[in-house]
Amino acid sequence: MPQVELLKYLETLKPTSPALTTDRPSVGIGLDSCVIPTRHAGISLVETTDFFYPLINDPYMMGKIACANVLSDLYAMGVVHCDNMLLLLGIARDMSSVERSVVVPMLLEGFRDLAAEAGVTINGGQTVQNPWMIVGGVATSVCHDNEIIIPDKALPGDVLVLTKPLGTQPAVNLHQWMTMKTASWELASTLVNEELVLKAYQDATISMSTLNQQAARLMHKHGAKCATDVTGFGLLGHSKNLAESQVANVDFNIHTLPVLAGLDKVCRELIERGGRNFKLLDGLASETSGGLLVCLPVSSAQAYIDDMIEGGGKAWLVGDVVEGSKTSSIAADPKIIEVTY
Amino acid sequence: MPQVELLKYLETLKPTSPALTTDRPSVGIGLDSCVIPTRHAGISLVETTDFFYPLINDPYMMGKIACANVLSDLYAMGVVHCDNMLLLLGIARDMSSVERSVVVPMLLEGFRDLAAEAGVTINGGQTVQNPWMIVGGVATSVCHDNEIIIPDKALPGDVLVLTKPLGTQPAVNLHQWMTMKTASWELASTLVNEELVLKAYQDATISMSTLNQQAARLMHKHGAKCATDVTGFGLLGHSKNLAESQVANVDFNIHTLPVLAGLDKVCRELIERGGRNFKLLDGLASETSGGLLVCLPVSSAQAYIDDMIEGGGKAWLVGDVVEGSKTSSIAADPKIIEVTY
Repeated sequence: MPQVELLKYLETLKPTSPALTTDRPSVGIGLDSCVIPTRHAGISLVETTDFFYPLINDPYMMGKIACANVLSDLYAMGVVHCDNMLLLLGIARDMSSVERSVVVPMLLEGFRDLAAEAGVTINGGQTVQNPWMIVGGVATSVCHDNEIIIPDKALPGDVLVLTKPLGTQPAVNLHQWMTMKTASWELASTLVNEELVLKAYQDATISMSTLNQQAARLMHKHGAKCATDVTGFGLLGHSKNLAESQVANVDFNIHTLPVLAGLDKVCRELIERGGRNFKLLDGLASETSGGLLVCLPVSSAQAYIDDMIEGGGKAWLVGDVVEGSKTSSIAADPKIIEVTY
Repeated sequence: MPQVELLKYLETLKPTSPALTTDRPSVGIGLDSCVIPTRHAGISLVETTDFFYPLINDPYMMGKIACANVLSDLYAMGVVHCDNMLLLLGIARDMSSVERSVVVPMLLEGFRDLAAEAGVTINGGQTVQNPWMIVGGVATSVCHDNEIIIPDKALPGDVLVLTKPLGTQPAVNLHQWMTMKTASWELASTLVNEELVLKAYQDATISMSTLNQQAARLMHKHGAKCATDVTGFGLLGHSKNLAESQVANVDFNIHTLPVLAGLDKVCRELIERGGRNFKLLDGLASETSGGLLVCLPVSSAQAYIDDMIEGGGKAWLVGDVVEGSKTSSIAADPKIIEVTY
C-alpha cells in the first residue's frame, strides 16, 4: 500500500477529544517507538510492535529475525532494557498438523533464544490461523527518561554511522529466484553465480538475526544525538524520516553505502538488463531487521565504530549532517563498501 | 487449532536460561494479561494483545469491538487505567483503493472513539496487507501493584457475577446465514424469524462494543477476589482457566446463563434438528468481547450488580464458589435469563 495512503489513514487515530490531546509531550506514530509519560514521575513507557511474513526458509532463524526486528525499534531510541515481549503469531491454515508440529516450535525457539540474548522473556501474545504465516511481537520498556534518546538532536557538523550492511531484500529475493528457478532467475543467473547468492543470503540471515542492542548501548557512551533503525522504507526513507523529526534545520547527506558483497554489482546490472530494480543504490531497497543509523558528534564517531567492532559488530561512517531543510539524500556516486560476515 | 496443541507450542517460549527464570513473581501466558514487575519499586507493567478477523459488517462498530476486546484483558485484572494502545491492522489485499478509503477510516474511527471513551490514545502500531482483514491492538498499563487484582483469591462461599450476556457467536452466525442465504439458513429459518435474528445481532453488536471498564472499577469498590473476561473459550472454558489459577481448592459452579434473547431456544432446536451445535448452553460457545466473570464475596455481590445497573451496565449472579479441585462446571439444567438491550 502506498505510504502516503497509510499515513492518511493513521491521521484518523489522533484523538478528537481535547481531554486526550492536551499536555502530552509524548512521541508517537511515525517514530520507531512511542514514548508515553506515565503517571509516575520520571518514568516513561516505550513500546513498539512489528509483525510480518516469513522471508527465509529456516523457521528457527526466522524466529530470531522477527525478535531482533521488534527489539530494534526500542534500540533505535537508545532504550537498552526491555521489560516484556509479547508474541504475535499467525499459523498458516494450509499447514498440516505434522508441518505445524515441526515449524511452529522451531519458529518459537528462535524467537525465544534471541529474546533471551537480549535479556527479555516472553509473557503473552496472540495466536491465530491465517492464510499466511505471520510472526512478530510487541516490545515494551518502562524506563527512566534518561534511558531514552529522543531522536531530535542532530546538529550541523555531526556525522552518521550505520551498523549493518544494506541488501537484505535482494539477497533474499535472489535466493528465492535461484532455489525456485523462477522466471526472474533466467536473467539473474547470467549475472551472478550461485555461490555469491548463497553467501549473500547466509550473510543477510546473520545480519537480520543480530540484535542492535550493543549499538543502542554505545549510543549513550558516545553521546549519540538521534537514531533510527533501517527497515521497510530503506536507508534513505528512514533517513528522511529521521531528518524530519529534528529540531535544528539539518540535512542528512549520505556518501557511503555498505552492502552485502556483490549485490551492488548484481543490482546495477539487473537494472541495465531490464530486470527488477531493487533501488539498492538509491537507498530505497526495503531492509528487514536492518542496522541503526546513528547520528553522533564527529569527535566520537570513530570511537563508536571501534567499540562496535571490538564487540563483534559492524559499523561504518556513511554520512554527514549539514545545515538544510530536514531532508536526506544520497550522493550521486556513493562509495560502496562490500560487506561479508 | 486445538487448544492443547497451542498450549504445547507456547511451552516453547519459556526461557531456558536460569538467569531469566529465577526470582520473577510475574504472571504470564495463560492469563488475560501478563503482569511484569519493573525495575521501579511497586510499579508493574500489565499488558495484553489481541487481534482477530472482522465478524460483523459495520467497520465502525467492528473497530469499537476490537478496541473493547483488547482493553477487556486489562479490565479482567482490575486494571482501570491504560497508558497506551497500539493498533494492529491487516488490510485485505483484494480490496480496491476505493474500498480501502471507505472501510479503513471507519474501522480506525471506531477503534479511536472507543479508546477515547476508555481515556486512552493510540500511539503506534503496525499495518500490513493480508489475504484477510485483521484488527486488534496492544493495551499497556504501568500501574501500582495495588491497582491490579491478581486472579487467585477465590474462597468457598464466594459467588460469581457475569457482566454481559452470552451468545455473540450464534447471533453473528445466524445473521450471516440469513443475509447470505447460506445452506445453514434453510434449517434455521424454520426455527427462528428474521426479526429475532436481527435483534440478537444488533444487541450482540452493542454488547461487544461495550467497555468492561466500569466492571473493573467496581471490582475494587466491592472487594472482588478475581475475574476473567469471557472470550474464545466460552464461559465454561474461561471459568475453568480462572478456577485453575486459584490458590484455594475451589470449584466454580455455574447455575445461571444470561443469553441474548431467544438464542437459547434456537440453539437447542438446531441441535435437535441436526443443525450446528454452538454449545451455547454448555457454556462453550466462543464469545467476542464478552463480559467479565467476577468472583465476589457473597456479601457484596448484590451491591456490585446494583452499581453496574445504575451505571447503565448489566450484571447477573451466575454461580457459586465451593470447595473443590480447581475446576468449573455448568448445572445440568441451568437457569436461563433472556437479555435484550
